[in-house]
Amino acid sequence: MERVVRHFQDDLDSLKQRILAMGGLAEERVREAVRGLMDRDEAALEAVLRGDQPINDLHIELDDRCFKLLALHQPMAADLRVIVAAVKINTDLERVGDLAVNIAEAGKRYLRHAPVKPLIDIPRMGELAQSMLRDALDAFVRRDMALAEAVLAQDDIVDALKTQIFRELLTYMLQTPATIEPALDLILISRHLERIGDHATNVAEDVIFILSAKDVRHTSIGPARPE
Amino acid sequence: MERVVRHFQDDLDSLKQRILAMGGLAEERVREAVRGLMDRDEAALEAVLRGDQPINDLHIELDDRCFKLLALHQPMAADLRVIVAAVKINTDLERVGDLAVNIAEAGKRYLRHAPVKPLIDIPRMGELAQSMLRDALDAFVRRDMALAEAVLAQDDIVDALKTQIFRELLTYMLQTPATIEPALDLILISRHLERIGDHATNVAEDVIFILSAKDVRHTSIGPARPE
Repeated sequence: MERVVRHFQDDLDSLKQRILAMGGLAEERVREAVRGLMDRDEAALEAVLRGDQPINDLHIELDDRCFKLLALHQPMAADLRVIVAAVKINTDLERVGDLAVNIAEAGKRYLRHAPVKPLIDIPRMGELAQSMLRDALDAFVRRDMALAEAVLAQDDIVDALKTQIFRELLTYMLQTPATIEPALDLILISRHLERIGDHATNVAEDVIFILSAKDVRHTSIGPARPE
Repeated sequence: MERVVRHFQDDLDSLKQRILAMGGLAEERVREAVRGLMDRDEAALEAVLRGDQPINDLHIELDDRCFKLLALHQPMAADLRVIVAAVKINTDLERVGDLAVNIAEAGKRYLRHAPVKPLIDIPRMGELAQSMLRDALDAFVRRDMALAEAVLAQDDIVDALKTQIFRELLTYMLQTPATIEPALDLILISRHLERIGDHATNVAEDVIFILSAKDVRHTSIGPARPE
């Protein structure tokens, strides 16, 4: 029995490490997509577009690990919470990888036009979304409630930036029709970044669920996220 | 033992029924949001905006049911697949509810302007997304592989409609600056509908996973979904 328990804890630890690895990969893809946009580096955007496979492989691997942990060990409440959360976090991270692809696609279209304006809020939004994701995953692995709650608070800043970007770009579009197409792509990119922040928020909510057995979703600190 | 097993199957059946109920609610909210847009019925859009609570309550209830089924019955492989899929499907349906809110918000902004054009493709997209969702959930409850596969095929049509809507609206925006703001909201609405199709696709993939123990994600019939 002792050996089985230790084996289970080893498997659980290595599951967490693989989730961190997947999170690192997702974060790097988001960073590269935003950097490619900023530096007008089409090759970097192409690399993001073509580089989806490792994260998709990890997605399947992690689902499989969770499933085997559930099937073979029949874990009890506390561990069960962690594994069910891992299933959800895995889905969120895979979506973040898809969103990096979406950013790279819109970025490639954006590069076909003259720059609309110096980009300031979009890289800020990108950094925020990335740090939310990193913090949420650290909170998961270190079981850090305060850090998870800090992630929820940051989501409001991301939403405010998205609204600000939208208003500013709308002004450009109305004044200068030549900016309509590229400004549209910047608006889409800001929405993709906002959704990455939403996925980080989901992860943070799962961490709070694990640690408190309290469901913060759909309450004042964890509302539905209308755009 | 016999009684425990029967009890478990009853719980599993009632979980499926509750998922159908949640799916019906999500679908109705999408329908009302699109109808409110089409009929320029602001009260209907307001009702969608305010009506998020029942679906959020169901989300928490279903998560709780899945968790209890896992914790109390320690189900074996086949049933375990169904419950893990239910956890994911629950998340997808809650997001569909959020997207109905997003559509209603963009719809309300759209109504502040003169109509850009008669809306034809957006209601088509809405009907497609709703029927994909309904079919995917029917496939889940009836364990219908062919129906799940049909949902995957429909996702391409939704994507094509989204691209078509984008191109057409861009033409309006370039020709008539007064259409820029309302056309932007139609573009956002078409993206929200596309994402509802993506969530239906996720559900269909989970059904295929349950029935075949084969993972169709990230293969030719279940690729990442770049926008």
